Amino acid sequence: MKNIVVVGGGTGTFTVLSGLKKYTRNLAAIVSMADSGGSTGILKDELGALPPGDIRRCLVALSNSDQLLRELFSYRFENGGLEGHSFGNLLITALEKITGSFEKAVEKAGEILAIEGKVIPVTTGKVELYARLENGRIIKGEANIDDPKHDGHLKIIEVFLRPNARVNKKAEDAIKRADLIVIGPGDLYTSVIPNLLVKGISRAIRRSRAKKVYVCNLMTKFGETHKYKTSDFVEAIEKYLGKNVLDYVIVNSKKPPKKLLLKYKKEKKALVEIDEEKFKDKKFLLIPAKVMSNKNLIRHDSDKLARLLLAVGELENVLKFINR
Amino acid sequence: MKNIVVVGGGTGTFTVLSGLKKYTRNLAAIVSMADSGGSTGILKDELGALPPGDIRRCLVALSNSDQLLRELFSYRFENGGLEGHSFGNLLITALEKITGSFEKAVEKAGEILAIEGKVIPVTTGKVELYARLENGRIIKGEANIDDPKHDGHLKIIEVFLRPNARVNKKAEDAIKRADLIVIGPGDLYTSVIPNLLVKGISRAIRRSRAKKVYVCNLMTKFGETHKYKTSDFVEAIEKYLGKNVLDYVIVNSKKPPKKLLLKYKKEKKALVEIDEEKFKDKKFLLIPAKVMSNKNLIRHDSDKLARLLLAVGELENVLKFINR
Repeated sequence: MKNIVVVGGGTGTFTVLSGLKKYTRNLAAIVSMADSGGSTGILKDELGALPPGDIRRCLVALSNSDQLLRELFSYRFENGGLEGHSFGNLLITALEKITGSFEKAVEKAGEILAIEGKVIPVTTGKVELYARLENGRIIKGEANIDDPKHDGHLKIIEVFLRPNARVNKKAEDAIKRADLIVIGPGDLYTSVIPNLLVKGISRAIRRSRAKKVYVCNLMTKFGETHKYKTSDFVEAIEKYLGKNVLDYVIVNSKKPPKKLLLKYKKEKKALVEIDEEKFKDKKFLLIPAKVMSNKNLIRHDSDKLARLLLAVGELENVLKFINR
Repeated sequence: MKNIVVVGGGTGTFTVLSGLKKYTRNLAAIVSMADSGGSTGILKDELGALPPGDIRRCLVALSNSDQLLRELFSYRFENGGLEGHSFGNLLITALEKITGSFEKAVEKAGEILAIEGKVIPVTTGKVELYARLENGRIIKGEANIDDPKHDGHLKIIEVFLRPNARVNKKAEDAIKRADLIVIGPGDLYTSVIPNLLVKGISRAIRRSRAKKVYVCNLMTKFGETHKYKTSDFVEAIEKYLGKNVLDYVIVNSKKPPKKLLLKYKKEKKALVEIDEEKFKDKKFLLIPAKVMSNKNLIRHDSDKLARLLLAVGELENVLKFINR
């Protein structure tokens, strides 16, 4: 597998990158710029900075530096006026202020962390994420959708960015050169789809000769993907990416222990059900696999997921070789 | 010149280190831990951190990394809750919190900055600087002495640390191995002497076979060294270091332009007068030299000062060779 591009932003993307990093050097992460919560939100509001949080996570995932430096980037101050700020966020914002360029800041932060691959903001424009709910209400701000201030039973009808933003040329180039594009996993409307809302990116993905894989979430999320089944996730992605673009959809087929599921139930989160029957007319190949880790959190297993993605890529190589 | 140790903390030490760095690789800076102003003071108070400010300046002086990284360390946030915080201070404090050790934090920060030489906190104990004025009043805190809350005409009778702190073993070792020890320039009672207040350091300097040079300040400072002449500076140093310890005293013999002096006069600062007659009984060699830079600030010229210091060292080498 030559060039792999991962599209996302949050913890899911961190997992994918951490896994793939061990097997390939040609990785690029395209990262959402709609983040507005916590330390990132404060830097956005108080300093007019572009949101560094998701970028930082991806940089740490791709870092080859020692444990201490990676811990430093993820460190959060615990007291006083700095409370809650992530050190890595402060670093990226300071570099943005000094260089006057968010992209240069990300590049330099990547140098400091000795990253393998590239981390690319999906756009360099300042944007805000909005969601329209089924009752017509508009929610402003990624943080308010992610940590819902609205009745979480209400469905999200659509999400959009204001102002409109154009795709970063570097993201477009990476997509053009990609052999495999991995979309997700991650919060559907607040991490993954915000990338697809940026003007030009869906078209770039559609036009790319790369194989396109969507990795579906393990769990639903109250206020965002409440009661969603696999087909609902795919439908949402296709709404913004276009129909008949995905080549593969990876869904988890492993059941977590009941005790763990009960813990998640308290947060109104449930295992995403595979509703295979809905996929009959779809062009893509559905791959159910036990990609869940055996830990105390319901997360993807970064190594298993990476190996599955690489095998998909290898399969494509073999097919290309046979069918040429 | 083999091993050079510079004792101080503030801007003066930055100048000395920046100059010497170009000529020698065997540099160690021993840095005061009494700093309590600005960003450093907040980190000390709110996070219980050891004061990073002076350490940061020395790290930047010894850094071989690119301009951007050095700018990053010196960058100060300009708005919001982070206003006034130096990025480098936040980095050192975050590392201190993660590793649980201020020394390890300084070491790692030095690695990130690719420093040549060593930066050593004079003590790893938490201390507060106090000054007793001629009217008997006690001033608590370096920041309150440095930026005087008291009547600046009053003389400082003595300074002391509470609680008592012991010299860092690594500082002691560096002093033992030194061939040349440079004390100052820098704020006399708030940057230079706070080093000498630490238990064991003056004895270590006295016992070292190194030649000891004191670099006298260019200007007096209201509230700290108001109306001081060269002999007053030397006397204060000798009070804490011991008599007959210094081998050389470098004093500036260049006069700045009148216009510039007038600007400083508004801050009640005056050129330090050389009162040579007071030095007749002294064992050390007084070296008057034009070590002032030609810039818009009255500062030491880092290159001239470095070359003079190295020449003193070389002179000692030659003398040792001749007299052996």
